[in-house]
Amino acid sequence: MNHKIVLFTLGRVVLIEAALLVLPMAVSLLYGERCALSFALTIVLAVVTGSLLCLLCRGGRGTSSIKDGFMIVALAWIVLSAIGALPFVFSKEIPSYIDAFFETVSGFTTTGATILADVEALSRGMLFWRGFTHWIGGMGILVFVVMLVNTPDRSINILKAEMPGPTVDKLVPKSKDTARTLYIIYTALTALEVIFLLLGGMSLFDSVVHALSTAGTGGFGAYNASAANFSPYIQWVLTVFMFLFAINFNLFYLILLGRMRDVFRNTEFRVYLAIVLVSVAVITAEIMPLYRTFSDSLRQAAFQVASIISTTGFITADFTVWTPLSKVLLLGLMFVGGCAGSTAGGLKVSRVAILFKMMRRELRHTLRPRVVDVIKMDGRRLDERTAHSVAVYFALYILSIAALIVSLSFSRFDLETNLFAAISCFNNVGPGFGMAGPVGNYSPYPPLFKLFLSAGMLLGRLEIYPMLLLFMPAAWRKR
Amino acid sequence: MNHKIVLFTLGRVVLIEAALLVLPMAVSLLYGERCALSFALTIVLAVVTGSLLCLLCRGGRGTSSIKDGFMIVALAWIVLSAIGALPFVFSKEIPSYIDAFFETVSGFTTTGATILADVEALSRGMLFWRGFTHWIGGMGILVFVVMLVNTPDRSINILKAEMPGPTVDKLVPKSKDTARTLYIIYTALTALEVIFLLLGGMSLFDSVVHALSTAGTGGFGAYNASAANFSPYIQWVLTVFMFLFAINFNLFYLILLGRMRDVFRNTEFRVYLAIVLVSVAVITAEIMPLYRTFSDSLRQAAFQVASIISTTGFITADFTVWTPLSKVLLLGLMFVGGCAGSTAGGLKVSRVAILFKMMRRELRHTLRPRVVDVIKMDGRRLDERTAHSVAVYFALYILSIAALIVSLSFSRFDLETNLFAAISCFNNVGPGFGMAGPVGNYSPYPPLFKLFLSAGMLLGRLEIYPMLLLFMPAAWRKR
Repeated sequence: MNHKIVLFTLGRVVLIEAALLVLPMAVSLLYGERCALSFALTIVLAVVTGSLLCLLCRGGRGTSSIKDGFMIVALAWIVLSAIGALPFVFSKEIPSYIDAFFETVSGFTTTGATILADVEALSRGMLFWRGFTHWIGGMGILVFVVMLVNTPDRSINILKAEMPGPTVDKLVPKSKDTARTLYIIYTALTALEVIFLLLGGMSLFDSVVHALSTAGTGGFGAYNASAANFSPYIQWVLTVFMFLFAINFNLFYLILLGRMRDVFRNTEFRVYLAIVLVSVAVITAEIMPLYRTFSDSLRQAAFQVASIISTTGFITADFTVWTPLSKVLLLGLMFVGGCAGSTAGGLKVSRVAILFKMMRRELRHTLRPRVVDVIKMDGRRLDERTAHSVAVYFALYILSIAALIVSLSFSRFDLETNLFAAISCFNNVGPGFGMAGPVGNYSPYPPLFKLFLSAGMLLGRLEIYPMLLLFMPAAWRKR
Repeated sequence: MNHKIVLFTLGRVVLIEAALLVLPMAVSLLYGERCALSFALTIVLAVVTGSLLCLLCRGGRGTSSIKDGFMIVALAWIVLSAIGALPFVFSKEIPSYIDAFFETVSGFTTTGATILADVEALSRGMLFWRGFTHWIGGMGILVFVVMLVNTPDRSINILKAEMPGPTVDKLVPKSKDTARTLYIIYTALTALEVIFLLLGGMSLFDSVVHALSTAGTGGFGAYNASAANFSPYIQWVLTVFMFLFAINFNLFYLILLGRMRDVFRNTEFRVYLAIVLVSVAVITAEIMPLYRTFSDSLRQAAFQVASIISTTGFITADFTVWTPLSKVLLLGLMFVGGCAGSTAGGLKVSRVAILFKMMRRELRHTLRPRVVDVIKMDGRRLDERTAHSVAVYFALYILSIAALIVSLSFSRFDLETNLFAAISCFNNVGPGFGMAGPVGNYSPYPPLFKLFLSAGMLLGRLEIYPMLLLFMPAAWRKR
């Protein structure tokens, strides 16, 4: 590891976080809340820490490797969460630091799992900060850093380590420009959602918080009932935007260029659309006896499907009382997740599609060992190396979830609760089934287990490898 | 598909089953039970059907392909179970044909899942037949066919399709001789277990039934309490033999040749031993507060660990009331299963070991993309094609279990019951958690779901591909 370069970049990240914290402070001041002070104190601490790191590690020499990119990403997300948790503690709105850390990791990883039983007791500043962490985390804080700082040789390594999905398509030749394009699309879509929510009569504050949260596919809202008490119009707006934010952002770029045919030729998008439509149809039929009308059933089904597959985690109904088939479908959607290159978590639709194609090929190969077969995505031949990585990633993904379940089993909670808590956190969904289900929260877990769950959220968000690296002594060694 | 060759082989299989049914009939006669008639009737039917198939399809020409081998295996297991279920129905000891079919599939696939609440009500003939189906299924009925019938060109295809684990090592050049060697070891070990059980004061009948059941890693016993009321000595004998029957049989051959060093150099065996020792140690410590003494805790832990990892399914304790950590470990062992080339089910230890090595390599590859790395098993380089197949198989395996869970979700039972029923049946373990746990059985599932579970057991036992083929129209087409 090139310590100087890593620490210098971390310093930059901390400084940027300080700048970002000005926004929730402004919100607090606007509403005349005392918690503005907590943000101010955190900003001062962040500026001092960040400046020290930057000054002490300035002029780091030598090239940085992929390994350094991974280390920067893993450490940056932990440091960001460690600092981002401070306002909650300083304001005593979440008195325990571990709880605040869990909440912040849940925010940045866009999970939306909460330890709060009463969200409505939070000040506006804190509510805004929770939604804002989703928005920042959604696109990847380091994509942001790459955009601002021009360090061409190492930026693509960082992008590779932080971006979700099997491949990073570069929209434009330079990674700096790629990042900027993505951020513009992201911001524009968020603004559009705010407008649609305002049109439904939602207050400006609520509209902004919910739009930020939807954009990051997070799930932190402003109400204890999540989205259950919103009007049907608002629920539909949220449904549509949750669906949109789980689509690969490159496709929005293609739409901007007017290349609609390429969008519909995209394998991942087609599979995603098919999964959503089938799930909504099946669940609507299943829950019809529970809701009075077809339109109610459709709305509930569509909302929950969009919320779970996009790994947002807003809820309008306690789906744990739905039929077994509905529940198992929603559970399956937690694993699938959104599209690669979106803000969603989970395994990603493209990986699922590649796995299916690989299985079909393997079956064919078993029968006719001499026939050579290629896998196609978007009409082009998929690189064998990528296919192989996807299969190994899947094994690692299942194993990581299993490891998380085993660690949670040391707690006094039952297997079912642990199972679903692990699956929901790892896939960055938020609500699980059982104790931590739609009507519960994660506060009953003892502190140690909240740290395990935090690690699970980070592993899931960063797609395992960067976090694993932290446990390899070789990665820490100086080059 | 070469219909004539496939049907001719099926005819042979049915005739062999008729011959095998003579044994339980003899047992019934010995004890003067009326159910001997049911066996006689089944034998007559089997002889007629088998002879007709053989006569009508005699002289099938042309070579048989791998596809034909797969079709033979898949169809043979279904036909065997369909006929093997008849004695239960004829004797009215299991009046429903679907129930009897489930029980027989569970027998041949060495699962040991039962629909009977009162096993002790069965006649001796039927109890023997249940244990005997495990023994037959354990080694693979078709290995038996290969041994008796000399058809060199197609036998290796059948062996490949039926034998568990990623590769078929040929012990001796001809598959016929390989099969014979395996059967001799299998029979000798079974006889040894009978002797050890007799020494513990068990009756001859019980000793034979339990030895047959252990050898096939099945789990059908003769008592409602499974193995809970046996003496500690008997329980230890069962523990040791369950452990032994989940080891690759090739290793016993190596022991016979005096090549002990090769046994301990075997990667799969070492991993298997390590998993068993660690699991027993952890669970013993966990359940100490539940049992009075260390020796009791150790015996309970060792018995359940050996029973679950070997996918036998005998039980001496209701492990669903054990600690969450113990339960999750046992659940993990269900997935791991025994060694390749044994009678055990599950994913197989060698696949798990290969997956771990692939993940480690992938992590290294992520950091140093230009370094080429090979995976080693037993000190030799593992073929990349095999490694790739293992990764894809894992994905297919997880997906198949997920599909089984989804199909079970159409029933009125809760998610947890369906989840564990699917996992237990697919891995050929037997008892699950929840309703179908150690103190329950599978009878509450409606007939359709018993068929789903039967399909799951067959998919798991035949390692998916042969069964999948049945659903491909192309496979049925005449060549």
